[in-house]
Amino acid sequence: MTAERSDFQAERGYSADKAAYQRRLRRIEGQIRGIARMVDEDTYCIDILTQVSAATKALQAVAIGLLDDHLGHCVRSAVAEGGADAEVKLREASEAIARLAGRSSGRTGARAD
Amino acid sequence: MTAERSDFQAERGYSADKAAYQRRLRRIEGQIRGIARMVDEDTYCIDILTQVSAATKALQAVAIGLLDDHLGHCVRSAVAEGGADAEVKLREASEAIARLAGRSSGRTGARAD
Amino acid sequence: MTAERSDFQAERGYSADKAAYQRRLRRIEGQIRGIARMVDEDTYCIDILTQVSAATKALQAVAIGLLDDHLGHCVRSAVAEGGADAEVKLREASEAIARLAGRSSGRTGARAD
Amino acid sequence: MTAERSDFQAERGYSADKAAYQRRLRRIEGQIRGIARMVDEDTYCIDILTQVSAATKALQAVAIGLLDDHLGHCVRSAVAEGGADAEVKLREASEAIARLAGRSSGRTGARAD
Repeated sequence: MTAERSDFQAERGYSADKAAYQRRLRRIEGQIRGIARMVDEDTYCIDILTQVSAATKALQAVAIGLLDDHLGHCVRSAVAEGGADAEVKLREASEAIARLAGRSSGRTGARAD
Repeated sequence: MTAERSDFQAERGYSADKAAYQRRLRRIEGQIRGIARMVDEDTYCIDILTQVSAATKALQAVAIGLLDDHLGHCVRSAVAEGGADAEVKLREASEAIARLAGRSSGRTGARAD
Repeated sequence: MTAERSDFQAERGYSADKAAYQRRLRRIEGQIRGIARMVDEDTYCIDILTQVSAATKALQAVAIGLLDDHLGHCVRSAVAEGGADAEVKLREASEAIARLAGRSSGRTGARAD
Repeated sequence: MTAERSDFQAERGYSADKAAYQRRLRRIEGQIRGIARMVDEDTYCIDILTQVSAATKALQAVAIGLLDDHLGHCVRSAVAEGGADAEVKLREASEAIARLAGRSSGRTGARAD
């Protein structure tokens, strides 16, 4: 939840690739549906796990792509403009990276000893 | 792809929890659809990323549950019965664990020096 | 901490590869020392991060190898012998897999809805 | 390997926390040494795995902290100054994030369909 949320006609980091992200997400949705079908049809566990790993990988790739676009657009312009927003955007990005890597925030990390 | 695939009326490790897995997968499918909608509505990148992380985590939890059921049923009975199938099942499980942890197989790991 | 811990002259899953594991761990220890040196010498952040990723990957590969050996020896013989120990060993293995994948236990996973 | 590497008396993103990072890395080095000792003493596999997971987690936390410092200092000032260096720094950061999350670069991700 961020202040940005209510932006009207917002230009996002991923705007240029919107159609590609939609296609990728639709494909992942199809993968999940396929996994549910495998469970329904009593498919061998290991074959289901292979599909779960593939879907997880595809989802992680979407996250990395979004974060990359976010750094290259939103964070970049906030920093170029300066001010308090740059600080907020950088903190948010760090927290998102920590979640992506399967950890909670790393911002307070170095002081954690 | 395994020989098991053609089993007819197979009893799987996850059979007892089949309905629960279906519900979890349907919920994940809904999460992915929600993420596609967020992209469509130009939602702020970081808010999308939060949802992608949540879906990834839910998917990983399904994988861990399936693997756990697989070890406790399929691998367990193959080992109890002995024979070549036990060997195959153990190798498959190891490879699935390596994929889950985001690595390729670890079986040849110790020799890799 | 397990009951096994006090075993005397224990035969472990990794016993046959002990020397290889020692070599791999020594190499990882050297990598960590190298990273500390890089920090000391004000090395560029990204170059340090590359080394941290390499060390993390090497450590994960050791974990996957150990788990693989554990399944193929300890878990296998506990299951072959049957009894309560098989149950304990399978649960322990599942919990270790969940930790490896960066999650807490998956055993209660399927019921978590 | 980057051009930055030869910088003399470089100010790094992590400079303010240098002593803390050194302490954390020394502690991780001790953890790895402890794991090697456990292997040497035939410690139970699962107890070793618990320590390997703890060391991996500590190492990931160092990476997240370094990346956070890097974004907040190096990337930030490159972007504020503008020019080609900002582009390079942003790309490097994205690639480091992808490695951290256990994937190769995500930059070309969105086009990968």
